[in-house]
Amino acid sequence: MTRFIYLIFLLPILLLAQQKQTTEERFRSIPKTENLRDYMKHLSARPHHIGSAYDKENAEWILSKFKEWGWDATIETFSVLFPTPKERLLELVSPVRFTAALQEPAFAEDPTSNQQSEQLPTYNAYSIDGDVTAPLVYVNYGIPADYETLDRLRISVKGAIVIARYGMSWRGIKPKVAAEHGAVGCIIYSDPSGDGYVGGDVFPKGAFRNGDGVQRGSVMDMPLHPGDPLTPGIGATENAKRLKMEEVDVFTKIPVLPISYNDAAHLLEQLSGPVAPESWRGGLPITYHIGPGGSKVHLKLKFNWDMVKLYDVIAMIKGSVYPNEWIIRGNHHDAWVNGAEDPTSGQVSMLEEARAFGELKKQGWKPKRTLVYCAWDGEEEGLLGSTEWVEAHADELKQKAAVYLNSDSNGRGYLGVSASHTLENFVNAVAKDIEDPETKLSVWKRWQARAIADASLSDKDQIRSRSDLRISALGSGSDYTAFLDHLGVASMSIGFGGEDDGGIYHSIYDDFYWYTHFSDTNFVYCRALAQTAGTMVMRLSETDLLPLKFSGLVDAVKKYLEEVQTLLKTKQDESNERNRQIDDGVFTAIADPHEKFVLPVKEHVPPFLNFAPLQNAVDSLSRSAEHYSRVSEKISTQDQKLVQFLNQRLIQVERAFTHDDGLPNRSWFKHQIYAPGFYTGYGVKTLPAIREAIEQNNWTLAEKQIIKVSAVIGQGAGAIDAMAVEIEKLK
Amino acid sequence: MTRFIYLIFLLPILLLAQQKQTTEERFRSIPKTENLRDYMKHLSARPHHIGSAYDKENAEWILSKFKEWGWDATIETFSVLFPTPKERLLELVSPVRFTAALQEPAFAEDPTSNQQSEQLPTYNAYSIDGDVTAPLVYVNYGIPADYETLDRLRISVKGAIVIARYGMSWRGIKPKVAAEHGAVGCIIYSDPSGDGYVGGDVFPKGAFRNGDGVQRGSVMDMPLHPGDPLTPGIGATENAKRLKMEEVDVFTKIPVLPISYNDAAHLLEQLSGPVAPESWRGGLPITYHIGPGGSKVHLKLKFNWDMVKLYDVIAMIKGSVYPNEWIIRGNHHDAWVNGAEDPTSGQVSMLEEARAFGELKKQGWKPKRTLVYCAWDGEEEGLLGSTEWVEAHADELKQKAAVYLNSDSNGRGYLGVSASHTLENFVNAVAKDIEDPETKLSVWKRWQARAIADASLSDKDQIRSRSDLRISALGSGSDYTAFLDHLGVASMSIGFGGEDDGGIYHSIYDDFYWYTHFSDTNFVYCRALAQTAGTMVMRLSETDLLPLKFSGLVDAVKKYLEEVQTLLKTKQDESNERNRQIDDGVFTAIADPHEKFVLPVKEHVPPFLNFAPLQNAVDSLSRSAEHYSRVSEKISTQDQKLVQFLNQRLIQVERAFTHDDGLPNRSWFKHQIYAPGFYTGYGVKTLPAIREAIEQNNWTLAEKQIIKVSAVIGQGAGAIDAMAVEIEKLK
Repeated sequence: MTRFIYLIFLLPILLLAQQKQTTEERFRSIPKTENLRDYMKHLSARPHHIGSAYDKENAEWILSKFKEWGWDATIETFSVLFPTPKERLLELVSPVRFTAALQEPAFAEDPTSNQQSEQLPTYNAYSIDGDVTAPLVYVNYGIPADYETLDRLRISVKGAIVIARYGMSWRGIKPKVAAEHGAVGCIIYSDPSGDGYVGGDVFPKGAFRNGDGVQRGSVMDMPLHPGDPLTPGIGATENAKRLKMEEVDVFTKIPVLPISYNDAAHLLEQLSGPVAPESWRGGLPITYHIGPGGSKVHLKLKFNWDMVKLYDVIAMIKGSVYPNEWIIRGNHHDAWVNGAEDPTSGQVSMLEEARAFGELKKQGWKPKRTLVYCAWDGEEEGLLGSTEWVEAHADELKQKAAVYLNSDSNGRGYLGVSASHTLENFVNAVAKDIEDPETKLSVWKRWQARAIADASLSDKDQIRSRSDLRISALGSGSDYTAFLDHLGVASMSIGFGGEDDGGIYHSIYDDFYWYTHFSDTNFVYCRALAQTAGTMVMRLSETDLLPLKFSGLVDAVKKYLEEVQTLLKTKQDESNERNRQIDDGVFTAIADPHEKFVLPVKEHVPPFLNFAPLQNAVDSLSRSAEHYSRVSEKISTQDQKLVQFLNQRLIQVERAFTHDDGLPNRSWFKHQIYAPGFYTGYGVKTLPAIREAIEQNNWTLAEKQIIKVSAVIGQGAGAIDAMAVEIEKLK
Repeated sequence: MTRFIYLIFLLPILLLAQQKQTTEERFRSIPKTENLRDYMKHLSARPHHIGSAYDKENAEWILSKFKEWGWDATIETFSVLFPTPKERLLELVSPVRFTAALQEPAFAEDPTSNQQSEQLPTYNAYSIDGDVTAPLVYVNYGIPADYETLDRLRISVKGAIVIARYGMSWRGIKPKVAAEHGAVGCIIYSDPSGDGYVGGDVFPKGAFRNGDGVQRGSVMDMPLHPGDPLTPGIGATENAKRLKMEEVDVFTKIPVLPISYNDAAHLLEQLSGPVAPESWRGGLPITYHIGPGGSKVHLKLKFNWDMVKLYDVIAMIKGSVYPNEWIIRGNHHDAWVNGAEDPTSGQVSMLEEARAFGELKKQGWKPKRTLVYCAWDGEEEGLLGSTEWVEAHADELKQKAAVYLNSDSNGRGYLGVSASHTLENFVNAVAKDIEDPETKLSVWKRWQARAIADASLSDKDQIRSRSDLRISALGSGSDYTAFLDHLGVASMSIGFGGEDDGGIYHSIYDDFYWYTHFSDTNFVYCRALAQTAGTMVMRLSETDLLPLKFSGLVDAVKKYLEEVQTLLKTKQDESNERNRQIDDGVFTAIADPHEKFVLPVKEHVPPFLNFAPLQNAVDSLSRSAEHYSRVSEKISTQDQKLVQFLNQRLIQVERAFTHDDGLPNRSWFKHQIYAPGFYTGYGVKTLPAIREAIEQNNWTLAEKQIIKVSAVIGQGAGAIDAMAVEIEKLK
């Protein structure tokens, strides 16, 4: 009885409190760490790579969850090429014999590490078959600069098998560059300096990569195009027209195999030849030599080149006001093995967002725009699930896709954001409203503090004075690629990290045991990701005028313009200096006569390029942005017709920065401001057509691309200015 | 018969050629690589540390050589305190037991490595006796900055035994700073990242330090004063007044022992506690932890505190014109063990110079000034031989010592010069006349090329445009210290290196086998050193007006003035920035709540200091130097009286930069422009009284020292100006 009386008194207060809570706040109060933990335990219970039984089970489980939470959900399937190992052999045949183990052992304390029959062996997907025996040469990270060093040291990899360490580029770059230099095979290993005991105690004692851990991963030539190798540019539906195997352009040119540092140590310690330059030396207890000396290895790889089905789960809540404006949210569900961190930590956050939207929907809330939640399959092999879906639905997406929001692995620490710069102001605003679970500060405040702490003394004040923190540009490495780079959909990729160091990436140890012992053990940062991404989705859905702004974009493009100019200037200065040193005999004078190397020869100094078109275009972009900013302040959201008209135009602004021709020699990549680097793989190259032409000393191409890119930027400026003009007209 | 006819034709040509050769050129043609090799083989045949039988034999052999070559030579002895190990025990007692080997094994291919009965055990001289058992803490290099890091991580070394790696400071700094922070013992080891397999293949396969190699060395508190601990400031003659053992101020405060990286690995791998910061991690195949966790070590050291005799060989050729102006040349002959590189490579070069001067003398040549050649003993323990000799002969040297020229170890590569800046122009001039034996360029050209190649793009042009290459200032670490820092004798230290990497420093493997396999194997750089140093000695002797110039000095002092001003400014900026970040909550925001550390607290920003007196003094030095330069061009060397008068004054200029009080808290160091750093040990601190006061945040002291040092520089300026006035007067 007394209890009832209390309730009577409390009820109005509770109601009042709830009324005062905004819908966003209500949304953020729903995600629960227990759920996140339960989802992860379930999804990572067994290996679930594309084509596996548990991958399909997971897709169906995710589907059932979406349905349970009131979403319209389906599974969309595609048929893709997915090679798995039939035979893997790596042996040192000279000067001593050694056969690599190529096996990650199970640990008693880690209950899923023993599921060997379901685990994919350690390998690199889309390596070609091969059987080669050749001298071994250590090539550091195997990036182009490393081969310049080898050239100076008079060491050729022609006919050799190279061994490169992971790092400094996406892995697929290593066999690609090795093959360009005539290598016949490529071994990639995780050096303990970058991924092992140097970083911290190794698994299972600590979070870091142990001596037997191997990084699996795709080596498909993704900078050409991601997605199913047989269906570039089109959806890999059952009856799609497929390339023949010999027509595929994204397989490696030479066989590639990833190995552990325990295996690598046996190979590297047998190399002789020159001692590796200082920056090439890793963390193994050996003297790093380049080789080859008498070392010779035998690498034999055979794959099952199978077609498998992939299962994208697509869930929707139709928009109540702007149903043809889609806010798309994605995270893949497939993993290399158990994948608790990659991708399940992000997937569970997305699922908990979906549950929260379901809750709100039950309470009567409806999104204004259409929400599209996507659990992608086959990301690990080359962004297969997202790319095929984007290609299959390209026409509809070009019309309707307003923003794509991606996540992938998630950990403890700081909010990290890479995005289209039209969203810079938006992500800053959201970050200010999300609470960091451990410090109780806003995640924006922590983000800013980290940026200030890490900046040089001279940059600190700029960070303090700018109301928005600068965001990074998107390269590649997750499912936003097709949206941004192929279609020109404004995109974001977010996640927490920086306090979650470890080394289980793409190994069998990326599992529930590892994650709950060494990463976001109590799932508060997975909840924070659900709160952040969900708030973004909700705000993108509910704000009548899409919150895309252009001053951040102008700032970024101005910076990129300066960078490419500086890049050329630096190349000229270095070239002039090198030529002068050659004239002055500096290289001859400092050559150690006991060592072999090639003296540099005089070269053509890079010419001056005509940057004026680009400067004019950027200037015009800047004026358009100011124009739009000035007039858009006065828009009344009551003017439904204007708002709807502008939204349609705003969605198209990012498209305006694409060109149908794509980038030189890789037409799939349409965006002219952002692209993954041809020789970095994941790392972004901004103004890629110009920057890469300069990097590769292709001056004719650079001149041409400056004109082309300037036109594209002018087109973007035009799109923005047209909106401003329209607003003025309608007043 | 025909042969005779040839000779008749050839003779005039040969005579003509010889006449055209200058005396310097004749000198440089005399040194022979075979001799250098023979001397080294002899001198390094057995261990010859101070107090050993072979040390005395070597001194006597060197004496006999000098005599054989026509020098007036004697052995001067001093009695000094020299501790050797009676007991050395280092054991890990927890969490597992391990006893350190503390032993360098012999190798069959290295014939002198098995002379164990004569080898000094691996130890640090002037460590105190001790028997301590305590937790072990890894302190990186054990320099003051490392303890600041430990403070932030809330780790105290109070009551602990610290383990520090060699490098970043002279070794004696490590136990000194450890004791200041309350440690009870100190272990120093050679980490393979700085001195071992990371650098190259290890001995005997390669030149680098193997897993059992140990760096012996003195840990006497030399920044207070070098020389015999019992006789600071006076010569350690038989009957000198000696301190009691308890009065000695240069012993360590805690027991210290150096160990190999094989031994160290057993200790370090047992540390737990926080993972060491990234820059603290070395090259062992372990995760570096700071400790202590449960690790505990037992360190027991007992020494024989014996008095031994040291044998300085002093050889002279009296000057024919200026007998009271001495050109002094020195290189030590004692070694830690066999010491082929350190010091024999320098010693043999000096001996070959002496032989060459002997040759010239036989041919009738006489030096104008007195040449004093010194083969020092007891350098390794704390510059004992040179310091005691300088202290014993201080009064005479103050009058007569014009220049001291030092060498020590020598190797392949580039000429390295550190010197009083009054000699900057002189050493550049000599370097232009010496041929590099391998490239046949002048050693100056190679030196310049190296400097250009290593400089930043913006510094390169400055190097090109300056007619003299800048020389480094002298810190400590060899026998010039007493000459320059205690007496104010213009000094130089020279040697070749940079292409002679290896790791046998102060180990039993620094021997003839190592040197002739991995360093200057054909002794051409030892010959180049003899040619360089001998040319310097000859030119210093033969040039009527001593070739001391002041524009290099002015440049250097101006640079040092800027540096101390920048040092203060940087400290202010950093302090302001840190305070601002504290106010803004940056440190709180980026603190990982899972880790323990101390948040920084607000501090007083360093005050502005009155640099005006120093600026005025430097300005006056600059004007005096210009004045002297202007008038000295007109001096006729025919004017014997003026020349003799000026030489006497020139000798005294370097003395004018000393102050009788010495540096704050270390009165033995009189020079006010150069000194080894109190917390670097060897590394030079220029304007030391001011710079170190600022570094240590002692603002009152800094203000006082600015005034004092300004007066000293004014005094130097006065000495230079007085000469100029005198020259003008006498015209």
